Amino acid sequence: MRAFASDNYAGVHPEVLAAIAQANTDHMVSYGADPWTARAEELLRVQFGATAQPWLVFNGTAANVLSIGALTRSWEAVITPDSSHLHVDEAAAPERMAGVKLLTVPTEDGRLAPEQLAPLLARQGDEHAPQARVVSIANATELGTVYSLAQTRALADAAHEHGLLLHVDGSRLANAAVALGASLAEVTVEAGADVLSLGFTKNGAMGVEAVVFLHEPPPAGFAWLRKQHAQLSSKMRFMAAQVVALLEGDLWARSAAHANAMAALLAAEVSGIPGVRVSRPVQANAVFAVLPRDVADEVRARFPFYTWDERTGEVRWMCCWDTTEEDVHSFTGALRDACSATAG
Amino acid sequence: MRAFASDNYAGVHPEVLAAIAQANTDHMVSYGADPWTARAEELLRVQFGATAQPWLVFNGTAANVLSIGALTRSWEAVITPDSSHLHVDEAAAPERMAGVKLLTVPTEDGRLAPEQLAPLLARQGDEHAPQARVVSIANATELGTVYSLAQTRALADAAHEHGLLLHVDGSRLANAAVALGASLAEVTVEAGADVLSLGFTKNGAMGVEAVVFLHEPPPAGFAWLRKQHAQLSSKMRFMAAQVVALLEGDLWARSAAHANAMAALLAAEVSGIPGVRVSRPVQANAVFAVLPRDVADEVRARFPFYTWDERTGEVRWMCCWDTTEEDVHSFTGALRDACSATAG
Amino acid sequence: MRAFASDNYAGVHPEVLAAIAQANTDHMVSYGADPWTARAEELLRVQFGATAQPWLVFNGTAANVLSIGALTRSWEAVITPDSSHLHVDEAAAPERMAGVKLLTVPTEDGRLAPEQLAPLLARQGDEHAPQARVVSIANATELGTVYSLAQTRALADAAHEHGLLLHVDGSRLANAAVALGASLAEVTVEAGADVLSLGFTKNGAMGVEAVVFLHEPPPAGFAWLRKQHAQLSSKMRFMAAQVVALLEGDLWARSAAHANAMAALLAAEVSGIPGVRVSRPVQANAVFAVLPRDVADEVRARFPFYTWDERTGEVRWMCCWDTTEEDVHSFTGALRDACSATAG
Amino acid sequence: MRAFASDNYAGVHPEVLAAIAQANTDHMVSYGADPWTARAEELLRVQFGATAQPWLVFNGTAANVLSIGALTRSWEAVITPDSSHLHVDEAAAPERMAGVKLLTVPTEDGRLAPEQLAPLLARQGDEHAPQARVVSIANATELGTVYSLAQTRALADAAHEHGLLLHVDGSRLANAAVALGASLAEVTVEAGADVLSLGFTKNGAMGVEAVVFLHEPPPAGFAWLRKQHAQLSSKMRFMAAQVVALLEGDLWARSAAHANAMAALLAAEVSGIPGVRVSRPVQANAVFAVLPRDVADEVRARFPFYTWDERTGEVRWMCCWDTTEEDVHSFTGALRDACSATAG
Repeated sequence: MRAFASDNYAGVHPEVLAAIAQANTDHMVSYGADPWTARAEELLRVQFGATAQPWLVFNGTAANVLSIGALTRSWEAVITPDSSHLHVDEAAAPERMAGVKLLTVPTEDGRLAPEQLAPLLARQGDEHAPQARVVSIANATELGTVYSLAQTRALADAAHEHGLLLHVDGSRLANAAVALGASLAEVTVEAGADVLSLGFTKNGAMGVEAVVFLHEPPPAGFAWLRKQHAQLSSKMRFMAAQVVALLEGDLWARSAAHANAMAALLAAEVSGIPGVRVSRPVQANAVFAVLPRDVADEVRARFPFYTWDERTGEVRWMCCWDTTEEDVHSFTGALRDACSATAG
Repeated sequence: MRAFASDNYAGVHPEVLAAIAQANTDHMVSYGADPWTARAEELLRVQFGATAQPWLVFNGTAANVLSIGALTRSWEAVITPDSSHLHVDEAAAPERMAGVKLLTVPTEDGRLAPEQLAPLLARQGDEHAPQARVVSIANATELGTVYSLAQTRALADAAHEHGLLLHVDGSRLANAAVALGASLAEVTVEAGADVLSLGFTKNGAMGVEAVVFLHEPPPAGFAWLRKQHAQLSSKMRFMAAQVVALLEGDLWARSAAHANAMAALLAAEVSGIPGVRVSRPVQANAVFAVLPRDVADEVRARFPFYTWDERTGEVRWMCCWDTTEEDVHSFTGALRDACSATAG
Repeated sequence: MRAFASDNYAGVHPEVLAAIAQANTDHMVSYGADPWTARAEELLRVQFGATAQPWLVFNGTAANVLSIGALTRSWEAVITPDSSHLHVDEAAAPERMAGVKLLTVPTEDGRLAPEQLAPLLARQGDEHAPQARVVSIANATELGTVYSLAQTRALADAAHEHGLLLHVDGSRLANAAVALGASLAEVTVEAGADVLSLGFTKNGAMGVEAVVFLHEPPPAGFAWLRKQHAQLSSKMRFMAAQVVALLEGDLWARSAAHANAMAALLAAEVSGIPGVRVSRPVQANAVFAVLPRDVADEVRARFPFYTWDERTGEVRWMCCWDTTEEDVHSFTGALRDACSATAG
Repeated sequence: MRAFASDNYAGVHPEVLAAIAQANTDHMVSYGADPWTARAEELLRVQFGATAQPWLVFNGTAANVLSIGALTRSWEAVITPDSSHLHVDEAAAPERMAGVKLLTVPTEDGRLAPEQLAPLLARQGDEHAPQARVVSIANATELGTVYSLAQTRALADAAHEHGLLLHVDGSRLANAAVALGASLAEVTVEAGADVLSLGFTKNGAMGVEAVVFLHEPPPAGFAWLRKQHAQLSSKMRFMAAQVVALLEGDLWARSAAHANAMAALLAAEVSGIPGVRVSRPVQANAVFAVLPRDVADEVRARFPFYTWDERTGEVRWMCCWDTTEEDVHSFTGALRDACSATAG
C-alpha cells in the first residue's frame, strides 16, 4: 500500500532500525540507566541547550499529557486552539489523565494569536474560575501551518507576561523547523517555549517521543509522574537508539525536509488539476484540498487518505519520510484521471 | 555486562527483531488496523479461546492499570497481596490512573489464599466502605513462586462466589505456565481468571504487553480507555510483530523454559556454596538467597543484581531468555570465590 | 446590607429555619436514614414522579459534578453552553472531580439550541475522539433566560436521538418553573430531561441541593459516588428539613415568584432611567443592564452588585426571595440620582 | 429515640442553633466574605496561633481529603493506621478525590507508633515506588483511644525527620483535648502537627468542619481546591456561626467533656454487669465492649448501637454532647436486665 493518509502509515527508517539492532547486545540496566539513553539525552541537550531536561515516552499523547500535567495543579487550565490534537484527538486524556481543564479558542488556520489570551484571563485570581496556567500550541499545527519564529516568540511573551507557560506540541516539530530553516532550538527554547513534546515517530522512528523541559528548574517529581502514567520503558535502550539515529547526524532534518518537499510537490501538481483546490497554505508536510466527493472516493480506494471535514468534503494528504516522487506522480495521475472521468 | 538483576536487562530475542524488520515494509494503516496486529490478535485467540479480547499496550504497568480500571468504578477496590507489583512498584498508578483503591493482604510467599478474601468483604453494600470488585494476583509472583492450577481455580471460585473478578498479572505468565507444564490458557481462563495482563517484554520482546479480557462481554469503551491512557501505538504493527514472533511457534515457551532452567541450575549450584542459602522455593526464573553482605557487594560489582530486602540482606537473582550456562557458572564461581575469601 | 449581587446574599427563609429547629429533637439515625430525609425524598417524588430518585447534597457544584459523573465514563464528554456555571464557575470541578471533558458551545442568550449538537457528534465511535454522552443546560440560565417547555423538549429529543442524556442544572429551577407557569416536573421530566441538579439554597434554604435521577434504572453505585465526593451529610435531617419546608406547601413557588416579580419590577423601573439600558430579556430573577461605569461604581458602594462583563461594563442585578419593593425603590432611586448627577 | 450508635445521632446544641438564627439577618456577601466567617476564622487563629490558616468545609471526609490532597502530588502517599476513617470509612475518597495512595499499618489500639514509619520509607527516592509524604492519625482514634501529647510529638518528630508532614484527623479532637486536659493547640500544633481536620459536627454543630493549616506557608491554590471539591459554601455565614458558637466561649470543651464523662460513667456502670466486658481503654467518648450477641440484639432494639466486629461480637457505644445520665442509667439497666434474663 502507498498512502497519503498519515505520516504514521510509514514504517521505520532503515537507519533507525539499524540503530535498534545495534543496541541489541549484552545486558544493560533497564528503565533508562543505560548508555544509549544517556547518549540520547546528551544529543537532546546538544539540540536544546545544557539545561534542557529530556524524558523519553512512548507516544505523543503521553508527551502532551505529561507536559501539561507536570506544569499544572488540578484547578489550572490550558489554553489551546480548538483544533488542537490535545482537544480533539486524545480521547479526553488531558482531562482524565492530567486532570486539567482545556480552554479552547477558535482559530483561522490552527495558529493561536497572542491577543486571544487576554479574554481567557479576566478571572485569574477568582476562586470560582479555572485558572489558566499553560498555553499549548502545536508546531507544525494540525492544519499544516507553521508558526514563524516571531509568532512563537510573541505568544511566549504574551504567555509569560500573564504568568503562563508555553507548551509546544512538536509531534511534527522537525517539519516546522525545516520549513523555517531553523534549528529545533530556534523554534522552541530560543523563541520562548518552556516545555516541548518532541515527536520522533512521524519523523522515521518506530515509536518514541520526548518531553523536554527547556528551562531550569525541572518540575519536582517528574520521574514518578512518567512512571505512574505507564510511560517508563523497561528496555529503554531501544527507544533511545531511535533518538540517537535521528539526532546523531541530520537524519531528523533529512526526513522532515523530504516529507515537506513531497508535500510541496504534491501541492504544485494538484493545483493544476481542474476540480481540485488546495485549501490551506502548504507549509510543512500536509496538503489540504477540496475536490469532488466521488473523485476523492475513487482515488482513496487506491491511495488511502482521510476526509478532514465531512461537511465541506475537505481532505488531508500527508507526506512522509518515505513518500517518493513516484508516489506523488502516481497519486496525482490517479487524481487527474478521476477528475477527467468525472468532468467527462 | 552480564547481570542477574532483572529479566529486563536482557535485549530482544533475534527472532523477535527479525519479525520487526519483516514488518517494516510499505505503508500500513496505523493504530492497529494492520495485518500484523490482526495476526497477533488471532494468535492470542488461539491461545486463550475465541472469545478472548486482546489489546496491545506498551508495558506492564499499563496492562495492569487498564485491566483493573476497565473493571472497576471509582468506589470499587482491588484485593492484592502487599508484595504485588501493582502495590509496590507502580508509583501509585492504580490509585491515580485507574482511580482505584487497593486493599492489600500480607502473604507468606507472594501467593494469596482464598480464605483471605472474606475478611475484606464484611462491608460489601455499606455506602461508607470501599467495595471490593477485583482480586489481582501475579503468576509467577514477585517472589518467584507459582500458583498451581488448583490454587488459581480456588481463588477464582472464591472471588466469583463473592461477585468479584479475578485479574492475573502475567508479566511472567510464560514462566509460570512452563513451570506447571500447562498452556497459557490452562493457567488463566481455564482456571477461572477473568482478565489478564500478559507480558512479552521479559519473555524476549522489545516492549509489548497485552490486556486480555477472557470472557464476553467486553467492558464497554475499552478502546477509549486505552487511547486515553496513552497506550494506543500509532505504528502498532511493530508491537504486533513481536507478539507474532513469540506466539506463532513456541518461542514464548522456549524462552521461558530456558530462563526457568537457568534459575534451577543457579539454585542448584549456589546451594552447595557455604554461606549462601536459597531462601524461597525456586519455581520460575527467580532465585532468592541470603548471603553475607560483603560477598554480595563484591560479586554485584561484576554481575549486577538487586538486594530485595535491605533489612535481611536477602537478594534476588533473575534469569532471562538469554542467560547462558556459562553466565551461571561464571557467576557461581565468583560467588564461591568471594565466599571463600570472606570465610578465609 | 441590601444587595443585588447574588441570590446567595440572602439568608434563610424563616419557615425553613423553623423546620430546622423542629427537626432538632431527639436522636435520629445519621447519614439519611431518618424520618426527615424520608419525608423530603417523598416530597421530591411527589414533584417529579414515583420513579424519581433524589439524593441530597451540600451545594450546586456537587449536584452538577455528581449528576454528570454518574452518567459518564472517563472518555465521555458533556456538551454545554460556554456560559454555563459548569464551565466557568466551578473551578474545573467537572474535569477534576467527575473526570469528564466539557465540549462548549457559544450561545446568543445562554440557551443551547438542538441544532448545535450535531457538529459535536461527527466523531462518535472514533476511538481518538472524546465521546459526547450528556447535554447539560441550566434552567434558568446564567444569563437570566428561561428555556420554554418546547425548547427543553426539543433539546431532549435531539439528545436522545443521538443516544445522549439531558442534564438540567436547576440551581434556579423554581424561578424558571414559576416564569413558565409550569410545575417542576413539567419543566424537567415531562419535557424529557434525564437528570436534574435541583437547587434549594437560592430559593430560601440555608444550604441543600438535590441530584434527582428522573428515570429508572438508577446509575449503579451512586450512594458510593455521593459518599466519595464528601457529599453525604451525617446529620442529614437538617438538610432534609429545609427541603420539607420548601416543598411541603408552596414555599418554593412563593419564593421564586417573589424574586421574579422583584426582577420584573426592577427592570420596569430602571428602563425609565436615562443612561441605563436593560441588556437581556428578563425572564427569571436576574436583570442585566448596561450603564455608565461611574454610575455603577457609585451605586455599588451602597447596594453591592457584580459587573458581568468587564469589557462592556454590563452588570447583573439579582433579586432574591427576600428582596423587597422598598429595596427596589431605594436602589432605582439611587441609580436615578447617580445618573442625573453624572448627566449633569 | 435515645441511641449509643454514633455521636452523629445527636442533634444541634441549642447555643449553636441560636447562633445560626442570629446570623440570619440582612444580606451578606456569599462564599465566606462575611463577618461571621471572619469571626470564625479569627477564633480559630486564637485557638491555633496567628499563622494558622483555617478553611471551613461541609464534613469530615472533605476535611481529610482536602488536607491530604493539598499536601501531596499524585505519586505521593499517606501512611495511616489500617483502622483509620480515611481508609475504611470514606468510600475510597482519598484515592479517587485526592488521588493519593494510602499505605496502611496495623495497630494494637488505633494509635500509630513512630517506629512503624521507617519500614515504609525504605524506597523513598525510587521512581518505581510510591513516595510517602504525609502521616495521618486520628485523635481521638476510631477505637476510642487518645494520643498523649508525647505520643503525638514523637510521631511528628519521626515524620519530620523523614521529610514527612503530620496530619491529624480531629473529627473528635475536642474529646481528645479534654481527655488530656490540654488545649486544642497543645494536642496539635504545639505537639508538631502540620495540618488538621477539625471536627465540629460531633461536638454539637449541625454540619461544619475545618481544614487548618498550622504553619506557614500555606499550600498554594487551596481556595481553588476547596471550591473544586464542592466544599465552598455559598451561605457560609451559617457554617461560620456554628463555629463561633462552639469556640467563642467554652462550648466545645463543655460538650466534649460531657460526652467523655458519659462514656466514663457508662464504662463504669457496665463493668459491673456479668457477661459484659469493656474491651478497650475508655479515653474519650467511646466505649467498646464484648457481650453475648442475643443480649446485644435485645438491647439494641431499644437503644440503637453498632456492632464493631462481626467476628468477635465486639460492640461500640458512643456518647454525645446530649447523652444524659438518665440515658446511661436506662441503657445499663436494660443491659443488666437482658443479661440476667439470658443468664437465667
